[in-house]
Amino acid sequence: MLRDTQKAVVLVSGGLDSATLLAMAVDQGYQCHTLAFNYGQRHLAELKAGAQLSKAFGAIDHKLINLDLRAIGGSALTDDALAVPEAGIVEGIPITYVPARNTVFLSLALGYAEVLNAKSIFIGVNAVDYSGYPDCRPEFVKAFNNLAALATRCGVEGESVQVKTPLIDLTKADIIRRGVELGVDYGLTVSCYQADSKGRACGVCDSCRLRATGFSQAGITDPTRYR
Amino acid sequence: MLRDTQKAVVLVSGGLDSATLLAMAVDQGYQCHTLAFNYGQRHLAELKAGAQLSKAFGAIDHKLINLDLRAIGGSALTDDALAVPEAGIVEGIPITYVPARNTVFLSLALGYAEVLNAKSIFIGVNAVDYSGYPDCRPEFVKAFNNLAALATRCGVEGESVQVKTPLIDLTKADIIRRGVELGVDYGLTVSCYQADSKGRACGVCDSCRLRATGFSQAGITDPTRYR
Repeated sequence: MLRDTQKAVVLVSGGLDSATLLAMAVDQGYQCHTLAFNYGQRHLAELKAGAQLSKAFGAIDHKLINLDLRAIGGSALTDDALAVPEAGIVEGIPITYVPARNTVFLSLALGYAEVLNAKSIFIGVNAVDYSGYPDCRPEFVKAFNNLAALATRCGVEGESVQVKTPLIDLTKADIIRRGVELGVDYGLTVSCYQADSKGRACGVCDSCRLRATGFSQAGITDPTRYR
Repeated sequence: MLRDTQKAVVLVSGGLDSATLLAMAVDQGYQCHTLAFNYGQRHLAELKAGAQLSKAFGAIDHKLINLDLRAIGGSALTDDALAVPEAGIVEGIPITYVPARNTVFLSLALGYAEVLNAKSIFIGVNAVDYSGYPDCRPEFVKAFNNLAALATRCGVEGESVQVKTPLIDLTKADIIRRGVELGVDYGLTVSCYQADSKGRACGVCDSCRLRATGFSQAGITDPTRYR
């Protein structure tokens, strides 16, 4: 089968979704340039995981951008005065929503893609088993693609950059099954919002709950290290 | 006259346009939270100017976000290996275009606005006497507003944040005349792409040329300090 060997920027957080995303992009034949952000999140274990995953999947390179979203705050992930909810997933947009985070990340990925002459950005957003974040929905991605075509030199002069979201319609269990098929070692990944310095998960935040339910529903042994 | 006392985030670079923008936002009765970026530009004189202007116009506060766009590069402003053109303005998008810069800046302003519960972001883009940047055009701003409504908690749950561009249809001479009416001291501002550490301008980059022509056409003495 002929494969697409175009370049892609792949947003890799070090969690379960982005690990699967990277494996899928590599499987589709993309030359992947992984991009991660040290944005002031509660722990750096996910960044270490992102770098390991990039290496494991043969990414061309791995770039880490420092961007202090704690200067803005407004989220339990970027303001230590706001606690990460541990009582279970509730309706609506939770306090772990980081204002405009995916817009910011995609904007920086767009600039990087333009410099690389890459025409694809992969982001692991998911609208099924997700945390209620507005910037994970298909309509958000569509609006960003519309913006990207107008915002950039490549959009004006030639072919625009497109955001690709292969996980968007998958359940967490589907994502895990697909990743296992592609050889993802989920033991390397860190999803927990408040993992400790060794990458061990709390087991009670929304992200831990979604992940554990996903492994259970997929019928796959959960390799998560809990503290 | 009744004035709008809503909060606004105002992007203040320290140049001529954003100084006028801030004066206009204050004149319209906004409580202004100014926002600047240390993004790896060639000099920091403009950041000093931005902080001075914010103080002079009574901004509520002034925030500086560190964001290393040199990690991405691709512009004469963020890569020292690329020279700033000095021979005069030419057709097309110049090498001083920073990939996706306004998209990145507006995204961060959007997150900040959401945290402040501000409903307006002011940006000094201009589509008349401008440098050919794609992310200064009205269609770009419209697409960003469309995105903002879908990207944020406030867009989903209530009133979205709107980007306001009061300079967009003004000539550089119009901008200067309006600023002078509003008491802007353009001697404080730094427009030059490659100002020295004392904020003195080169006089030959595109930004210096547009600025000088603007003062000339407005019939106002140019207070720019050249080196």
